[in-house]
Amino acid sequence: MKKVAVIMGSDSDLPVLAPCLKRLKSLDIPFEAHVMSAHRTPGAATEFSRDAKHNGFGVIIAAAGKAAHLAGVLAAHTTLPVIGIPVKSSTLDGLDALLATVQMPSGIPVATVAIDGAENAALLAAQMLALSDKDLADKLDEEKRNMTEAVLAKDRALQEKIKEL
Amino acid sequence: MKKVAVIMGSDSDLPVLAPCLKRLKSLDIPFEAHVMSAHRTPGAATEFSRDAKHNGFGVIIAAAGKAAHLAGVLAAHTTLPVIGIPVKSSTLDGLDALLATVQMPSGIPVATVAIDGAENAALLAAQMLALSDKDLADKLDEEKRNMTEAVLAKDRALQEKIKEL
Amino acid sequence: MKKVAVIMGSDSDLPVLAPCLKRLKSLDIPFEAHVMSAHRTPGAATEFSRDAKHNGFGVIIAAAGKAAHLAGVLAAHTTLPVIGIPVKSSTLDGLDALLATVQMPSGIPVATVAIDGAENAALLAAQMLALSDKDLADKLDEEKRNMTEAVLAKDRALQEKIKEL
Amino acid sequence: MKKVAVIMGSDSDLPVLAPCLKRLKSLDIPFEAHVMSAHRTPGAATEFSRDAKHNGFGVIIAAAGKAAHLAGVLAAHTTLPVIGIPVKSSTLDGLDALLATVQMPSGIPVATVAIDGAENAALLAAQMLALSDKDLADKLDEEKRNMTEAVLAKDRALQEKIKEL
Amino acid sequence: MKKVAVIMGSDSDLPVLAPCLKRLKSLDIPFEAHVMSAHRTPGAATEFSRDAKHNGFGVIIAAAGKAAHLAGVLAAHTTLPVIGIPVKSSTLDGLDALLATVQMPSGIPVATVAIDGAENAALLAAQMLALSDKDLADKLDEEKRNMTEAVLAKDRALQEKIKEL
Amino acid sequence: MKKVAVIMGSDSDLPVLAPCLKRLKSLDIPFEAHVMSAHRTPGAATEFSRDAKHNGFGVIIAAAGKAAHLAGVLAAHTTLPVIGIPVKSSTLDGLDALLATVQMPSGIPVATVAIDGAENAALLAAQMLALSDKDLADKLDEEKRNMTEAVLAKDRALQEKIKEL
Amino acid sequence: MKKVAVIMGSDSDLPVLAPCLKRLKSLDIPFEAHVMSAHRTPGAATEFSRDAKHNGFGVIIAAAGKAAHLAGVLAAHTTLPVIGIPVKSSTLDGLDALLATVQMPSGIPVATVAIDGAENAALLAAQMLALSDKDLADKLDEEKRNMTEAVLAKDRALQEKIKEL
Amino acid sequence: MKKVAVIMGSDSDLPVLAPCLKRLKSLDIPFEAHVMSAHRTPGAATEFSRDAKHNGFGVIIAAAGKAAHLAGVLAAHTTLPVIGIPVKSSTLDGLDALLATVQMPSGIPVATVAIDGAENAALLAAQMLALSDKDLADKLDEEKRNMTEAVLAKDRALQEKIKEL
Repeated sequence: MKKVAVIMGSDSDLPVLAPCLKRLKSLDIPFEAHVMSAHRTPGAATEFSRDAKHNGFGVIIAAAGKAAHLAGVLAAHTTLPVIGIPVKSSTLDGLDALLATVQMPSGIPVATVAIDGAENAALLAAQMLALSDKDLADKLDEEKRNMTEAVLAKDRALQEKIKEL
Repeated sequence: MKKVAVIMGSDSDLPVLAPCLKRLKSLDIPFEAHVMSAHRTPGAATEFSRDAKHNGFGVIIAAAGKAAHLAGVLAAHTTLPVIGIPVKSSTLDGLDALLATVQMPSGIPVATVAIDGAENAALLAAQMLALSDKDLADKLDEEKRNMTEAVLAKDRALQEKIKEL
Repeated sequence: MKKVAVIMGSDSDLPVLAPCLKRLKSLDIPFEAHVMSAHRTPGAATEFSRDAKHNGFGVIIAAAGKAAHLAGVLAAHTTLPVIGIPVKSSTLDGLDALLATVQMPSGIPVATVAIDGAENAALLAAQMLALSDKDLADKLDEEKRNMTEAVLAKDRALQEKIKEL
Repeated sequence: MKKVAVIMGSDSDLPVLAPCLKRLKSLDIPFEAHVMSAHRTPGAATEFSRDAKHNGFGVIIAAAGKAAHLAGVLAAHTTLPVIGIPVKSSTLDGLDALLATVQMPSGIPVATVAIDGAENAALLAAQMLALSDKDLADKLDEEKRNMTEAVLAKDRALQEKIKEL
Repeated sequence: MKKVAVIMGSDSDLPVLAPCLKRLKSLDIPFEAHVMSAHRTPGAATEFSRDAKHNGFGVIIAAAGKAAHLAGVLAAHTTLPVIGIPVKSSTLDGLDALLATVQMPSGIPVATVAIDGAENAALLAAQMLALSDKDLADKLDEEKRNMTEAVLAKDRALQEKIKEL
Repeated sequence: MKKVAVIMGSDSDLPVLAPCLKRLKSLDIPFEAHVMSAHRTPGAATEFSRDAKHNGFGVIIAAAGKAAHLAGVLAAHTTLPVIGIPVKSSTLDGLDALLATVQMPSGIPVATVAIDGAENAALLAAQMLALSDKDLADKLDEEKRNMTEAVLAKDRALQEKIKEL
Repeated sequence: MKKVAVIMGSDSDLPVLAPCLKRLKSLDIPFEAHVMSAHRTPGAATEFSRDAKHNGFGVIIAAAGKAAHLAGVLAAHTTLPVIGIPVKSSTLDGLDALLATVQMPSGIPVATVAIDGAENAALLAAQMLALSDKDLADKLDEEKRNMTEAVLAKDRALQEKIKEL
Repeated sequence: MKKVAVIMGSDSDLPVLAPCLKRLKSLDIPFEAHVMSAHRTPGAATEFSRDAKHNGFGVIIAAAGKAAHLAGVLAAHTTLPVIGIPVKSSTLDGLDALLATVQMPSGIPVATVAIDGAENAALLAAQMLALSDKDLADKLDEEKRNMTEAVLAKDRALQEKIKEL
C-alpha cells in the first residue's frame, strides 16, 4: 500500500496531530511523520514533496498554524493529493490558518479539513487510498457502521442522564 | 475509470461550477453532474450518495452556498472521498459557506477547496483517481509543467508591459 | 399537548442543553431528548424527523457545533418548525455553528437562537405551542412578569452594592 | 386564523420583504405589514407588540438592518413568537444585523432566519400557525413536495445544459 | 451639576462597570446606577429614559452584552447623549455587542466606546458635562496631565526592568 | 454657541461627510470643516486639537477610513469630546476603520458612531451642545417628534404599496 | 544602489502593483518586476530569492491574493527584508491575503503593508534603502513635506466646496 | 551601527516584547526601549520620532494593542522605517490591533508583523540594518542556517516520540 506522509510545521503541533497518527495506525496504513517547515526548512520540504511519489507515498498531510503555508508549498511540488490541517494558535482562533490553507489559487488544490481536524485528515487520506484498495474500503465502511452504532448507544445512555436533570 | 459526481445545490451554481466540469472533460475523466439539495431533495441526495460507490463513482464533488450542508450530507452516506466547494452568495462574501463546509466533525471529512474554487475541485478529484491510474498521473504532471511554463511566459510578457507604465 | 424533541449532535452538548431541558420541564411541556447526528446517524435523524409529526411532536430543537448541519437536515424532512441552537466549540468562538445554522436557503427555514442559547430555544418552542394552548400562554405571560420583577429586584439590590465601590 | 404581523424598520426594506409578503399571500395567511422602528417610533412599536395577541396576531415578523434592534424590542413586549430577519445594508455585509438580531439574552428569544431571508420568515410563521391548522399544515407539506419536484426537474434540465459547456 | 445615569443590562455586568462608577466618583460627578434591560424591563427602561432630562440627568451610559440593544433603546426615548459600552460575553469576543451598539441608524446616535471600555464612558460623560462646567473641564485637563506624567514615569521605570532581560 | 469642528482625513471623504455638514447647518450650529490627516499633517492636526477649546470649539468630529487614527490622535490633545466616524474604504467593508476608531485605550475616549454614520455624528454633537443650550435642546426634541411623524406617514403609505405586490 | 525586486503572484495583479512601480521610478530606485508564483513556479521563485542578494537586490516586494504564500516563501530563502502586499480578490475582501501574509512564524518576518497597499510597499523599500543612502533619505523627507503641503492645499480648497453644500 | 528604538504603548506590553529585546541583544544591535503612548504621551512620542534619525536611530519598532495607533503616529513624523507589532488584548483576539496597525493610508507605511510577533520585529529591523552592514548580514545568514538545523534535529527527535503514540 502507498504510504501517507504526515508533515507538521513545528513539533509543538504533535498533540494536535496525535489523533491523525493514531487513526492511521488503527487502519494499518503505513505512514511517516516529519517536522518540516515551509519557512525554516524550505529545502527539505521541497525535496520531500518532489520525491514523495517516487518514494512510495500516495497522500501528503500537512499541518500548520498562523500563516499556514506548509500544505500549499508541498502541493506546489507534487501532483499527489495534499491534505491541509489548519492549526489553531494563540491568536485569531484558527481563522488565519484556515484561510491560509484553503484559499489556494487555481491549479494547486489543498484538500482542507477543519481547524485542528487531525482525525479527519487521516480518514480522508484513507478514503483516497481505498479507491484502489478493497480491504481498506471495507474497513472504512465497517468503521462508519461502528460510529453509527456508538452514537445510537450514546442516545440510549442519554435517556438515563436526562432523568437526573 | 471511476466516475466523478458533481453535485450542485442549485442550478444557479452552474456558472461557478463550469470550470470544474470543463477541467474534468479536458482530463477525459468521466463525470455526471446533478442538481441536488441537502434540504430540498434530501431523499435523492441520500440515495445518490449511498449508491455512488456501487454505481461506479470514485469521488463526489459538492458545491453549495450559505449554510452549505450539501457536501457534509453526502459525506454522511458514503466512504468515498467528498470534495466541498463553498459558493459565495449575496451576503457574507462566502465565509458562511466556507465554515459550513470545512468545519466537519470527526468521522466525516469533507475535502474543502477555496470559495468558488471549482477548478481545484476537479484537479483534486483527478489527483485522487490518479493514485491508481498512471496515465492520469502523467497527464497531471504534464499539466503542472505547462502551468509553470505559462507563468514563465507571462513573466516575459510583463517585461514589455512595465515599460509602458 | 404536542411534544418537543430536543436533538443534540453529540452527548458532549448535554451541559449546554441542560437549561433547555430544565425549562421545558418547568413549563410542564412533554419532551424527548436524543443524541442524533446529521453525519454519524443520518438515517436515524432522517427517520426521526420524517415521523416526528405523526409521533406527536410539535416542535424540534436541534443543537450542534462547528459545521452545524443538524437543524437543517432535520428541517429538510418535516414541515414542523425546527429551532437551531449553534453550539460553541473549541475554535472560532461559535461563529461557524451560527452561520451553518442560520444561513438556510429559501424553502427550509431554521429558527435560530443565540450561540449556546439553549434556554431561549425552550421558550421559543413554548411560544409556538402556546399559540393553541391558553394555559401555556398564560404561564409564559406570568413568567415574563416574574422575570421583570426579578430584574427590578436586582436593581434595588444594586443600590447597596454600589455603595461599597 | 391568527394574523401575521410583518414589521419593517424602514420602508426601504420593502424590496427585501416582498418575498415574505407574497408567500404569506400565496398561503392565504392573513397579515398586516407596517413600517415601525425600534428607534424612531418606539412608542408605536411597543404598543403594537403589547396589543398584538389581543388584536388577533399569532406571529410577528420583524426585519431590520445594521444595529437591528427591532425584533428584540418587539419580543420584549409579547410572548408571541417573534421572527427576526437581519437585513444587509451598505456596510459589513449583513453581519451586524445578524448578530444584533440573533444574540438575544435568555428570556427573550428571537427566531432568526438568514440575512435577507424573507421568504423563510413567512414559511416559519406558517409552520407555527400550522401547529393548530391542519389545512395549512397540508398546504405546507404539498409545497414541500412541489419544491422537491422542482429541483428534480432542474436536475433533468441540467443534463441538457452541461452538454453545451 | 447634571447627573449621569449608568444603566447596566444585567447585574452581572457590575465588575465591568466598576471602573466607570469609580471614575465618576473620583470626578465628583453625581450619578445613579441601575439594572435595567431593554428586553426584560422595557417599561422601566423606557420610562427612565423619557424622564431622564426632567429628572436632572445630563448623560446616560448604557452597558450590555450580546445583542446589546440597551443603549439604542434608551436613545430612542431621549435627546440626551447616550454612551454605549459593549460588554464582552462568553461567545464572539465582544464583536456582537460592539456591532449591536455602534451601528445605529440615522437619527438615533449612540456614542460607543471600546468593548468593556467602562472608564472611557465615564470620561466621555465628563467631557460632555465639562462643556458648561469650567471646574470639571479643569479637572479633566489636570487628570490628562497626570496621566501623561504617569506614562513618563513608567518609561523611566522601564529602563531598570529591561536591564534584567 | 460653541463651534463644532469637522475634520476629515482626506477630501475624498467629503461625500460621506456631507450629511453631517448639512445637519449642522440645518440646526444652525456654527462649524468649521477641515482636511487634516493624523499621518500626513500631524502637526496641523495636533495644533488644531490643542487649540480647539481656546478657539471656541465645543466638539470635534473626525472621519477617517482604513487604519483610522484621526479621531484618536485628535483626542490625545484635548479634553473636548471627540466623535469618530469610521469611513468604509475599498477593502474590509469598514471593519478596519471601526475597530481603529472605537477600541481606544483607557484615558482617551472617542465617541464612535456607525460606519459612514455622518448624520448621527452631527446629532450627537448637537446633543452634547444642547446640554447647556435650551433652544438647541428644544430643536432636537422637535426634530425627534418630526422623525417619528415621518415614519408613521411612511407606514400609512406602505398600506397602498403592499396592495400592489 | 541596490535594486528592488517586485514579484507578483499573477500578471492580473499588475493594476494593483502599478502605483508601486511608478513610485519606485519616481524615486529613481532601480527595480525589476516579475510574475512568479509560490505555487505555480516554486522553483523560479526559490531560485530568485536565494540569489537575490548576490544579484544586487536589497529588498523584495511580493504581492499575492487569497492564500498569499508568495512573500513568505520568498522570505524563507533570503535574509533580505521582504515586504508583503496582500491583494484583494473576489471573495473575503482581502482578509485571507492579509492573514496569510502577515501571520508569519518566528524566524521568518514579512513586512506587511495594507491590503492593495502597493504605493506604501515602494515607500517602505525606499526607507530601508535610504538607511545607507543620504540622497534617497533627503528625497523621502522632501516628498513627505510635499505630501503635507498637498493636504494643506486640499484643506484650503475644501473651504470653497463646503459653501456649496 | 544605527540604533533600534523599541516603543511600547504600555509597560504591560513588556512580556510580549521581551523576545524582541532579547533578539536585538543576541544580535549585538544597540537599542533603546521606551514606554510611549500615541494617546497618553503624544508630545513625547512625536518628539522622539521627529528626532530619531538625528539621534542615531535607524529603525523604530512600535507595539500597541486595541486601536493601535502608535506605529502610525510615529511613522507620521519620520521617514525611518517603522515596524508595527499588533498586541493581542482582552477582546477581539488581536484583530483590532492588526487592522489598526497595517491598514495605513498611502504615504505613511508601517511594516507590520504578526500579532504578538515581537521576535520577527527584531529580525526585520536587523535585516534592514544589515543592508549596509556585512557582519550583521552574515550573522543573520548563520542564524538562518542554525534555525534550519534546529528544525531538522526536531524532525529526528520526532521519530522517537511517535513510537510512543
